[in-house]
Amino acid sequence: MPYRIGKYTLALEKPPIILSCASVGSKKEGEGPLKDCFDYMEQDSYFGQNTWEKAESRIQREAVNRALAKGELDPSDIDYVFAGDLLNQCTSSVYGLRELGIPLFGLYGACSTMAESLSLASIFVDSGAGGKCVAVTSSHFCSAERQFRFPLEYAGQRTPTSQWTVTGGGAAVIGRGEAPPFIRAITTGTVEDYGIKDANNMGAAMAPAASATICRFFKDTGLQPDQFDMIVTGDLGYVGSGILLELTEKEGIDIHRQHQDCGLLIFDREKQPEVQAGGSGCGCSGSVLCGHILPQIQKGSLKNVLFIATGALMSTTSVQQGDTIPGIAHLVYLSFNMEDIKFTNPEKNCCVHGGRKGGA
Amino acid sequence: MPYRIGKYTLALEKPPIILSCASVGSKKEGEGPLKDCFDYMEQDSYFGQNTWEKAESRIQREAVNRALAKGELDPSDIDYVFAGDLLNQCTSSVYGLRELGIPLFGLYGACSTMAESLSLASIFVDSGAGGKCVAVTSSHFCSAERQFRFPLEYAGQRTPTSQWTVTGGGAAVIGRGEAPPFIRAITTGTVEDYGIKDANNMGAAMAPAASATICRFFKDTGLQPDQFDMIVTGDLGYVGSGILLELTEKEGIDIHRQHQDCGLLIFDREKQPEVQAGGSGCGCSGSVLCGHILPQIQKGSLKNVLFIATGALMSTTSVQQGDTIPGIAHLVYLSFNMEDIKFTNPEKNCCVHGGRKGGA
Repeated sequence: MPYRIGKYTLALEKPPIILSCASVGSKKEGEGPLKDCFDYMEQDSYFGQNTWEKAESRIQREAVNRALAKGELDPSDIDYVFAGDLLNQCTSSVYGLRELGIPLFGLYGACSTMAESLSLASIFVDSGAGGKCVAVTSSHFCSAERQFRFPLEYAGQRTPTSQWTVTGGGAAVIGRGEAPPFIRAITTGTVEDYGIKDANNMGAAMAPAASATICRFFKDTGLQPDQFDMIVTGDLGYVGSGILLELTEKEGIDIHRQHQDCGLLIFDREKQPEVQAGGSGCGCSGSVLCGHILPQIQKGSLKNVLFIATGALMSTTSVQQGDTIPGIAHLVYLSFNMEDIKFTNPEKNCCVHGGRKGGA
Repeated sequence: MPYRIGKYTLALEKPPIILSCASVGSKKEGEGPLKDCFDYMEQDSYFGQNTWEKAESRIQREAVNRALAKGELDPSDIDYVFAGDLLNQCTSSVYGLRELGIPLFGLYGACSTMAESLSLASIFVDSGAGGKCVAVTSSHFCSAERQFRFPLEYAGQRTPTSQWTVTGGGAAVIGRGEAPPFIRAITTGTVEDYGIKDANNMGAAMAPAASATICRFFKDTGLQPDQFDMIVTGDLGYVGSGILLELTEKEGIDIHRQHQDCGLLIFDREKQPEVQAGGSGCGCSGSVLCGHILPQIQKGSLKNVLFIATGALMSTTSVQQGDTIPGIAHLVYLSFNMEDIKFTNPEKNCCVHGGRKGGA
């Protein structure tokens, strides 16, 4: 059963594992540094469909089907799927997954969805509510551009702070087992709003949320950043990452050495300058987690990772009405060993969870 | 801890309770049969804001704040809020709740959101992941019309199958306790698509999902419709309700006597003919549950209720692209007594859960 350590963090008593996962990308992702990480890659942005929205549905379906196949699982083996995306009314999730017949909890967390879905799936598995659950998300550059910004035919100029929505997705099957990656803890985000109004600077809007969630995790658990190999945010990009490092440092938490960002990992800003400040979209952190990070934890080249997916929660309507852009960030602690780091709650000044395999 | 009875249904081992709840409505809801059920009623559709979207945010905030006040609770007492709405990117939830500082799981389930949020909150409480959780949703006639259909200024004619989006919302605080209403079980829906393409006939699109979920509940639990005082669907309206009764009867499950629909309860179709086939929107089942149904369970005038909120999961883009309208329905079993009905799984032909207070 999950149990609380601190105000914002839940530890998972018998850490669920990632049984299998899969990532999907398209042409631009295939030209970036992670080109060898995708389970399925389609050069054509339509993915064989006749609209970009249907292409995004296909991405989500492919991600789930390939994750299931890698785990030698059938849709009927899955108790729940937790899915969401950026499109209005989350249609790429619904249309993408409707044939599977798996009970669905639809989510909206913008680009934080991969961590939100992983969090809920982990709690379901640890509490026994679900035996095996799928967490999945997707995004598509073309469907996002025309929904949130301009028609592509308009060929609008992009500002230096803007980020490039990843055409891709990721799916992970969460269940019981003894093999890594283990899901150790989750820290759930609150809505943070620092008054950013520029919809082309989402990194700045999301950085305060990432900082708040990361600082709460360390306060709740009593752990230190140097106990982690990687603290990876989802899609702050270049601008937001810089702000995050400043904000966390102000709180006395130095994550310079461990910090990476999915939006900076997936594209090479020098060779792909059109991505401007980096990648974004639910599919960015989804595909980087499932294609790049989880496989490294599985083989032990990464031992302890904090995955923090961040979302900018505006709509075109809220922006047009002059409202600011709230952000949210959800954190998932993933590890190679089941319990090599003990959680200690510094406020209670006691160890609330015994380690089994010695220090990290 | 939650435990599984059948493929789609989870029973809650120590049933969580509704600690408090509140409902919000506006002018038309205040002219309907449930006019005395609202905790907060605003005649002005702007709710003192300058846009309808901000009005909807205010509805959601009022619902939560009033539910908290009725339970003598503070936002800091709440571990998680599960919230969603119909607006693109669920902005009425995010903007409505951002000042509360409660960790947020954003949901999208269209008009099924009240049952989806209740389901997740119940599992969190029963598993110990959350001590107290809030489930909340909202809708607004004007924000929904201009997003999904036509500008109100266009004064478009409404078809007889169309439903009237409720301007309102509902919030419930779920926690531990010994007083009703108890949350006994949940059945989570799958995406069902019978090929309906008319966005003005959502009842027909959602009825198959409601039928599937209701039939699965009875199959999973081994219970019978006549063990319930009320089987209330969220927002099928007149057309969808008729289809539901036909579909369930075909499956050998007769719910004629117990069936009610939130969309038919909230408006009087004779005195308010402009609502056509009845009410709809997340705020319809949300406000009817929190203002009308839960209070009756609390005082014992209803003993056993199945609440099934139904969602039509299309977007304007998916409709314009000629796609059909998928539906989903989530079920929550609410009771006055903690365990007066035993769950029996007919497939296993055994009682999997002992009763404590004798027969219903």
